[in-house]
Amino acid sequence: MKLFFGEINQDSAILSEEESHHFAKVLRGNEGDKIHVTDGKGNMAECEVVSVSKKAVEAKIIDLKTDFEKKNYYLHVAIAPTKTMERLEFFLEKATEIGIDEITFLQSFHSERKNIKLERIEKIVQSATKQSLKAYLPKVNDLTKFTDFVKTDFTNFTKCIAHCEADITRTPFENVLQTKPQHILIMIGPEGDFSRDEILLAQENNFTGISLGQQRFRTETAALQAVFATDWELK
Amino acid sequence: MKLFFGEINQDSAILSEEESHHFAKVLRGNEGDKIHVTDGKGNMAECEVVSVSKKAVEAKIIDLKTDFEKKNYYLHVAIAPTKTMERLEFFLEKATEIGIDEITFLQSFHSERKNIKLERIEKIVQSATKQSLKAYLPKVNDLTKFTDFVKTDFTNFTKCIAHCEADITRTPFENVLQTKPQHILIMIGPEGDFSRDEILLAQENNFTGISLGQQRFRTETAALQAVFATDWELK
Repeated sequence: MKLFFGEINQDSAILSEEESHHFAKVLRGNEGDKIHVTDGKGNMAECEVVSVSKKAVEAKIIDLKTDFEKKNYYLHVAIAPTKTMERLEFFLEKATEIGIDEITFLQSFHSERKNIKLERIEKIVQSATKQSLKAYLPKVNDLTKFTDFVKTDFTNFTKCIAHCEADITRTPFENVLQTKPQHILIMIGPEGDFSRDEILLAQENNFTGISLGQQRFRTETAALQAVFATDWELK
Repeated sequence: MKLFFGEINQDSAILSEEESHHFAKVLRGNEGDKIHVTDGKGNMAECEVVSVSKKAVEAKIIDLKTDFEKKNYYLHVAIAPTKTMERLEFFLEKATEIGIDEITFLQSFHSERKNIKLERIEKIVQSATKQSLKAYLPKVNDLTKFTDFVKTDFTNFTKCIAHCEADITRTPFENVLQTKPQHILIMIGPEGDFSRDEILLAQENNFTGISLGQQRFRTETAALQAVFATDWELK
């Protein structure tokens, strides 16, 4: 059964304008079709379409599940965008499938890319959410300066910075996960890593330096490993 | 320092013809340059180039490491190729970075793709091996019929088939990894999964049915998770 984004009310759901167009014009859907609708906030409704227009498809809710397949952790990954957008996009698709709640793009000292196409990224995340039948849509934040980001208040979060500086203290990420944190924030640096100053600034702001293993990973591979490991250990 | 593929002898290394061309013509390398050379079989040599031609670059070995960063397991993933080649290619790149030893492409009942470009796939795997500075080049096998593959003799391998058939016994993959197998073979099905007959045939041939979790993963995501989890638990 297909999943669409929309507004979920007491007994009915209304697809967003874009989704209505997709249902009516691209998929040529009809009244009586059975669909799933999510608001991206944990509600998953099994519905029957009652009226079709390309601006607003309405559906009657047959069954509503709240907190649908809710994970028992909240994962926020802050990543310096990769030079090749395809690699970042693939990361976003996989991270959404596996389980991520929030993504921030970091502008750091060694970042090679200074801009991102937020709208395109949101589309990828939406599409992966639908494809993997999830009821939670990850939040995507725009490019943020590293120096501003580390000073942001993330109350209740276990804050980590993955880096490769051998002479600045690092804890294996396993050890962090063994404390079963419920809210995790991980910063992943660009090719060329975070600068020494950035790592020290993060430490001053209570980020724990972590290592993801002995291997030399590309940015998006390190980020993927962090997402996989979190899911694997905390699921 | 850059890594190249070549033949490693007693005191010297000779780059392959393709790599020699790359070194001499693309990178415009010179005598006296320091490079790393691997044979893809575990040998990693730190070298100094002594003669340059576009057919055969020769280098003197300064330091040779055997069994360089050898993993303590051997992982063979047999995967039904995805409809979109990009997704399969990204899987291959990530799997090579994280750690995979052998890849076979499976032609199964629900496979949507009946052909693969083996040469292109080998290039991707070679390139990821070089980029992540590894001394072991994963072996890539051509498209093989599922029915032939399951009957192949894989002595000493813990053989697994990941599937989603709820009423055919499945063991969580964690449990398999907890037995610390040294040789693991995992089959990952196409979108639409392996057929019931295929799963039963695999069972008859001593494959253990495994589940990779509750989530609905795309083919390449399931394969990636298997690679990550194996590395995470056995590294």
